[in-house]
Amino acid sequence: MTDKGTLYIVSAPSGAGKTSLVAALVEKLPRLRISVSHTTRTRREGEVEGVNYHFTGREHFVRMIEEGRFLEHAEVFGNLYGTSADWVADTLRDGEDVILEIDWQGASQIRHLMPDAVSLFILPPCLKTLAQRLRGRASDHDHVIEKRLAGAREEMSHYAEFDYLVVNDNFERALHEMACIVEADRLRTTRQAVRQAATLADLLSGTETQ
Amino acid sequence: MTDKGTLYIVSAPSGAGKTSLVAALVEKLPRLRISVSHTTRTRREGEVEGVNYHFTGREHFVRMIEEGRFLEHAEVFGNLYGTSADWVADTLRDGEDVILEIDWQGASQIRHLMPDAVSLFILPPCLKTLAQRLRGRASDHDHVIEKRLAGAREEMSHYAEFDYLVVNDNFERALHEMACIVEADRLRTTRQAVRQAATLADLLSGTETQ
Repeated sequence: MTDKGTLYIVSAPSGAGKTSLVAALVEKLPRLRISVSHTTRTRREGEVEGVNYHFTGREHFVRMIEEGRFLEHAEVFGNLYGTSADWVADTLRDGEDVILEIDWQGASQIRHLMPDAVSLFILPPCLKTLAQRLRGRASDHDHVIEKRLAGAREEMSHYAEFDYLVVNDNFERALHEMACIVEADRLRTTRQAVRQAATLADLLSGTETQ
Repeated sequence: MTDKGTLYIVSAPSGAGKTSLVAALVEKLPRLRISVSHTTRTRREGEVEGVNYHFTGREHFVRMIEEGRFLEHAEVFGNLYGTSADWVADTLRDGEDVILEIDWQGASQIRHLMPDAVSLFILPPCLKTLAQRLRGRASDHDHVIEKRLAGAREEMSHYAEFDYLVVNDNFERALHEMACIVEADRLRTTRQAVRQAATLADLLSGTETQ
């Protein structure tokens, strides 16, 4: 038996704070790695290759799809996004947990391929806050914001497909809740039986060592 | 749909710190109530009727068994212990979580009656510590301690029947882990859909209220 990691899928509407929460969660907890997606979209200012995304040309991306090298892929607002199957499998095999940020469609694909994946959906506290957050990006035009709000509603309509629901009303509270979900999963007896093998062997040995 | 509470079953060998951990957990988390068992055993100094146990005469206890008023009951070291079925059902129906301290036999009975119950097993960090803790009760004779140690080994041999495994090496750490298990369960979408019904109605309404 090996201490195989758990795959976490995190989805949320744009503006719910998903990316900041996932980044803080990976900082907070050991043995949790974030999966960096491939994308064909243009790099925004401040984004770093290999950290935020693997920025990939469309032709190369399509070839990777054909070669079955993505666990999931999707086209969002005209750009392709995908998750490397090899990297996820290798990391879980090493006993580390992996967290993926994807939309509901990607989550649905992964659930079918990896039924043991644990899925979280993050909600903003209310529609007013969500609209304000989407307006917060000064670079965007009104019709872009409207399109995003419609997309957010569509995304949120899928919340019931996820295992856990976190409301990001207070960042620290939401972060604590996400950490609890990961920590509780690590305490499952099937996982603990591996991590605590030495303790269990001592306790059940029947030989009192003192 | 109602926000029905979750029943937690906590088992551990004597000396693992179960009672202190459960008491601290109930202090730490809201909406979590401890089930007070009925018992025929003699009240120890410092124990309070209705707080530690409902101390019950054997004749009355046996009548309660016959009337089906226990969710589980067991005889341990010649004394009867049992959990009131009515109180547990009423409390869960009110949306509160209930935590029960029982041995593996009681846990097994409850799992069959209430398959949604979540079970935790607490282990001491090592056999040496366990033996020291069992020796700590000055009132007990050596043969009583040996009997307890044998009982502890028997109890621990059932750890794999439980959903979660917590090692009580550090009290605060073990308490944090138990709290995570309860908090994570409350974040399950089925439970959150009820608690966050107003938020979900707002977010999915399609009407931006500002």
